[in-house]
Amino acid sequence: MKKNNGTILFESSPSICSFGSVVGKKEAQGPLYEYFDKIVYDSYFGQDTFEKAESEMLKTAVEIALEKGEFLPKDIDIAFCGDLLNQCVASSFAMSSFGIPYAGLYGACSTMALGLIMSAIAVESGAANKTVCAASSHFCTAERQYRTPLEYGSQRPPTSQWTVTGAGACVIGKAHNESQIQTPAISSAQIGRIVDYNIADQNNMGAAMAPAAADTIYRFLESTNTNVNDYDSIFTGDLGRIGSRLLFDLMLEKEIDISAKHKDCGVMIYDESQDVHAGGSGCGCCASVLCSHILKGMCNHIYHNILFVATGALLSPTTVLQKRSIPSIAHLVNIRI
Amino acid sequence: MKKNNGTILFESSPSICSFGSVVGKKEAQGPLYEYFDKIVYDSYFGQDTFEKAESEMLKTAVEIALEKGEFLPKDIDIAFCGDLLNQCVASSFAMSSFGIPYAGLYGACSTMALGLIMSAIAVESGAANKTVCAASSHFCTAERQYRTPLEYGSQRPPTSQWTVTGAGACVIGKAHNESQIQTPAISSAQIGRIVDYNIADQNNMGAAMAPAAADTIYRFLESTNTNVNDYDSIFTGDLGRIGSRLLFDLMLEKEIDISAKHKDCGVMIYDESQDVHAGGSGCGCCASVLCSHILKGMCNHIYHNILFVATGALLSPTTVLQKRSIPSIAHLVNIRI
Repeated sequence: MKKNNGTILFESSPSICSFGSVVGKKEAQGPLYEYFDKIVYDSYFGQDTFEKAESEMLKTAVEIALEKGEFLPKDIDIAFCGDLLNQCVASSFAMSSFGIPYAGLYGACSTMALGLIMSAIAVESGAANKTVCAASSHFCTAERQYRTPLEYGSQRPPTSQWTVTGAGACVIGKAHNESQIQTPAISSAQIGRIVDYNIADQNNMGAAMAPAAADTIYRFLESTNTNVNDYDSIFTGDLGRIGSRLLFDLMLEKEIDISAKHKDCGVMIYDESQDVHAGGSGCGCCASVLCSHILKGMCNHIYHNILFVATGALLSPTTVLQKRSIPSIAHLVNIRI
Repeated sequence: MKKNNGTILFESSPSICSFGSVVGKKEAQGPLYEYFDKIVYDSYFGQDTFEKAESEMLKTAVEIALEKGEFLPKDIDIAFCGDLLNQCVASSFAMSSFGIPYAGLYGACSTMALGLIMSAIAVESGAANKTVCAASSHFCTAERQYRTPLEYGSQRPPTSQWTVTGAGACVIGKAHNESQIQTPAISSAQIGRIVDYNIADQNNMGAAMAPAAADTIYRFLESTNTNVNDYDSIFTGDLGRIGSRLLFDLMLEKEIDISAKHKDCGVMIYDESQDVHAGGSGCGCCASVLCSHILKGMCNHIYHNILFVATGALLSPTTVLQKRSIPSIAHLVNIRI
């Protein structure tokens, strides 16, 4: 493993052995319908609270990933999971039944990429033979925690995004060259720095996160000496329509045009007719899109070399009330097949 | 790096190059007074909110660790930090000024040990030359978030613990054999599993966490084929007086008596006369005790081979209101000099 300007190059290319995704009803009504492994039409997922429903969703995504790879929980050495709930309880309650050594992560909506990077480091170093990484969000848990009680039905500004009800999980392990089946591999990564442009509007998280995405993508392209055209697609996490346009502008300031290669998971997951305003958001947004459309697209050789850049807004309801800015972060993973 | 039953053996023994601790007034009135690097008598730390004060404390601990090791932020490849606040905002605001690639962790009061383990994995694998790991807590931010407004002055039951106002930070790097100065090294580690004995009393976290500590210590001793007498001390994070007694009982069920070697950071940090009931708690408890008494004790050759077992209760105020149990975790780090 070499390192250059914060870029991690994985020599053994840790492999995404299997993956699973679970989403809710609204996500299933969107354009990516056919790619998801499981759709849950009941927002309570058979539980008595939305928080338990989110845990159940994350747990199910992990179970699907394990089953598809024919793994048992005992085959997994470390689980890296996270979510948006206070004290990351969706993840810890979800993972308490597996008995897998557990490392909790917090990266807001960047968590899935952070989990992939920590997994790849642990696998390449030999600390783990296999890891699982997963992330989730739920519209009903996030909205009432971050904004207003669901019953308010408060007006949403055009810049706001819709928290995705969904979860994604990947099993990461050493690439097996003897295997006939090619699996997507984590080739390199860039751990993000915290970037703060003093955006303080919690209803415009795309604007808060775009500078972090620009910083991470720019540093990665610089240190790997690659350019946008070397990649089939650059998928950002959940910048939404407004954040995506800001990202283009920030990259153009550095004379890099990413618009032709760029897709945003928050824009992809819903149709414009679904009234989600600027797009989807939440840890489960890019986690469920990665573990459905993107990775299935790679296995079907539609994509061969992509950048997955998950973005996170590191605010809390308390910091919003205290009128603080929204520090943001973006972690990048280069996945190849 | 070998691996056996979830135990990670570090072949290169990543080294704790430097460390720093910051605590508040009450902690400075306790028996460990002389070991802390900085004492802050103003609970606001010159800021206008307790949350900003906690960030400032964590930032200061990181600065002290960097200064003592003569490192600059640019020398550090990854920062692993966490705290108890919703969305871990103490850490993300603290770290936003350094420009260090940032990986947020959530392990409740086990965070410092999780940070050490992730640091050791990253350093041994070559993904980082140097990392920093840090954790913090603040009585005034934690009490009002987890329990009741500070102004209530509500009665505390005898099982309750007092959240430590403190932070600790370590710089981890490759051990330099050519150096004259010996530094404590991370020899091996055990990532904890989530253990849930259905304790639901948020005022008795020692009871919730003791089974996790017992599980982790037992698995580590088993897989390393070592026994309690091989270690100078076994420091648990913040089980307090009640949790420590429960840990002894749970270990005795497995015919292991740890009582002669055991110390608990939550018991050590306050004097019984300080009216903290069962002892100290919070991410900052074992982080500040590690980065003062324990590591200074190792550098002064009072301790040579210790187990640092930080415990975390993975509850949230929401899960408490929903009458759920408290899943817990304990991460173990074997440090030698």
